[in-house]
Amino acid sequence: MLQAVIMAGGSGTRFWPQSRRHLPKQFLQMTGNQTLIQQASDRSQPAIPVDRTWIVTGAAHAVETARQLPDVPANQILVEPCGRNTAPCVGLAAIQLLANDPDAMMLVMPADHVISPTSKFQEAIAEATRVIGEDPSTLVLFGIEPEYPSTGFGYIQRGERIESKLCPVYRVTSFREKPDLTKATEFVNSGEFYWNCGIFVWRAQTILDALKEFSPEITDCLERIRPAIGTDRWQETLEVEFPKMPSISIDCAVLERASKQVRVLEAPFEWDDVGSWQALPRLFPADRQGNTTNGLCCVVDTTDCIIRTREDHLIATIGVNDLIIVHTPTATLVADKQDENALKKLIAAIEAQGLTPYL
Amino acid sequence: MLQAVIMAGGSGTRFWPQSRRHLPKQFLQMTGNQTLIQQASDRSQPAIPVDRTWIVTGAAHAVETARQLPDVPANQILVEPCGRNTAPCVGLAAIQLLANDPDAMMLVMPADHVISPTSKFQEAIAEATRVIGEDPSTLVLFGIEPEYPSTGFGYIQRGERIESKLCPVYRVTSFREKPDLTKATEFVNSGEFYWNCGIFVWRAQTILDALKEFSPEITDCLERIRPAIGTDRWQETLEVEFPKMPSISIDCAVLERASKQVRVLEAPFEWDDVGSWQALPRLFPADRQGNTTNGLCCVVDTTDCIIRTREDHLIATIGVNDLIIVHTPTATLVADKQDENALKKLIAAIEAQGLTPYL
Repeated sequence: MLQAVIMAGGSGTRFWPQSRRHLPKQFLQMTGNQTLIQQASDRSQPAIPVDRTWIVTGAAHAVETARQLPDVPANQILVEPCGRNTAPCVGLAAIQLLANDPDAMMLVMPADHVISPTSKFQEAIAEATRVIGEDPSTLVLFGIEPEYPSTGFGYIQRGERIESKLCPVYRVTSFREKPDLTKATEFVNSGEFYWNCGIFVWRAQTILDALKEFSPEITDCLERIRPAIGTDRWQETLEVEFPKMPSISIDCAVLERASKQVRVLEAPFEWDDVGSWQALPRLFPADRQGNTTNGLCCVVDTTDCIIRTREDHLIATIGVNDLIIVHTPTATLVADKQDENALKKLIAAIEAQGLTPYL
Repeated sequence: MLQAVIMAGGSGTRFWPQSRRHLPKQFLQMTGNQTLIQQASDRSQPAIPVDRTWIVTGAAHAVETARQLPDVPANQILVEPCGRNTAPCVGLAAIQLLANDPDAMMLVMPADHVISPTSKFQEAIAEATRVIGEDPSTLVLFGIEPEYPSTGFGYIQRGERIESKLCPVYRVTSFREKPDLTKATEFVNSGEFYWNCGIFVWRAQTILDALKEFSPEITDCLERIRPAIGTDRWQETLEVEFPKMPSISIDCAVLERASKQVRVLEAPFEWDDVGSWQALPRLFPADRQGNTTNGLCCVVDTTDCIIRTREDHLIATIGVNDLIIVHTPTATLVADKQDENALKKLIAAIEAQGLTPYL
């Protein structure tokens, strides 16, 4: 049975001041009326109903997760005692799924991406399950056709095309970590590379077997956690064993080493990881002056700005350009749009100034 | 007896979003804990106690005036039914003062200027009253030594110096309306010119006589208003007669035509009309990066900005320069600091966008 595993471990303040340490991006409404984690949960329905939806999150975000996803059964919100990247996260979900269903298949996806349309996403899931149905040992990952030579994503080089119905599927020749611009440009121009968007479909048993083969230190811990499933000792056991696992991505722990088993499915949907405020013009097309505005704005002689406010607070600008302006009730950001690293530096300064409660 | 007449007719939105149509500049705390009108009222005390302090304001601002100056007797807050510039305002105050005291002397001053130190201001008042004591027909105005060739102020050219004790006093050779930059530079370089700051001292009867001589259409109206003083018909009469007066400044109506009677007193105090956000660096010295900030701010790689917020709302900036950023609970301004006319244009745009409630 196919089950959804939503990885909601994201923290951080890349969307400060809208995102805060206690309220990272997955809990924000970036587009429309739903938060990103609500969109993630809805995205695979009705193919995967909510009683087969699992969330893996951190202790700091368990309450907000439960509040935003009231229909997800409480025991399906897995609370990691600490962050250990995606490999332990996937492993933890796998042993939970297998406890009830030895044939469980997992759709693993981050909680904080924007994907549209949903129908195309569901086509991709259908194709992935078909591929796995034909060869249960395959690990399917979704590849995104690169739009520009990004140095921020990992790349997947496709190999031989295999038979598929709804979208192209390929064997994988190589994985490439975040490249420099020259390499990235080569990759994009070759037409053979996809962005690795961190969305996977596989049988729970297959990924556990692969973890055991390539990262046995993870499965050793998982085997000590497994007997506690469904018992009173669950959270306590997790708190002892989970921190012992290495912090490693599922890509490094398994996929790069098991590339023979991996298939890349060319995503038929639009995808955005919404990595920074600079992503907004991709989600909300800019007006003729190059401005992307949300909420109550009055902009005059203003160009190429990203402005975000509420419907009850007016942001009025004149004679400015290339700014990011974000208003929230307790803090307002005004930053140079061109400098992608500005926000990180600013966050450090806010902390240094003793204003941590604002983060 | 010397009485204070504070002209609080100012309206407008030159300090938007902090100033609003219902809350113009005189009602704001620009420096310290008092609003500008409170500072104006306190400035001449104890020389002029509050029971000899009069306020002339508009109907839209009567309530706020009364609230901010609870010690000023209610019948000494004169409410103009419409704005008619300073000549009718001064005339109206003069007939009120004369109703109780035929020898009343008036200190007339705007409600929305910043003056310091108070002790020097009081010295100037003392000198002015001394000059008038020697020649009751004189009209004393305070002249400000120009700091730069402003094109926004009227200039007064001084003539022969007369005897004075606490500060220099001169006869007046000419009045010059707002000049162009070339003229303004000439004026400043000559060393003979002062800015006209709109602060005057004179006997109420003297200014009424001068109004009668040079602007009889004003005194005609005032004579029809005078019988209603202290009666139930006061406000009603004012509503009928006041609007009939021409809208003209006391400078144009009287001073420029009566220059033989005028003396200019070189102000011994610091003065600022706080005409725009750009004035703030004069009131609050900028830091080493050229930033003038009030309230809770975190500024990184930010230069030559004027930032104003509350203590409970963080403004965080990075990589920006020459901006004016002002946060209030309902609206935030982000504007180019270099363009002095930007705010006016922006206000028009806000109105055109149907957002008048934010003005």
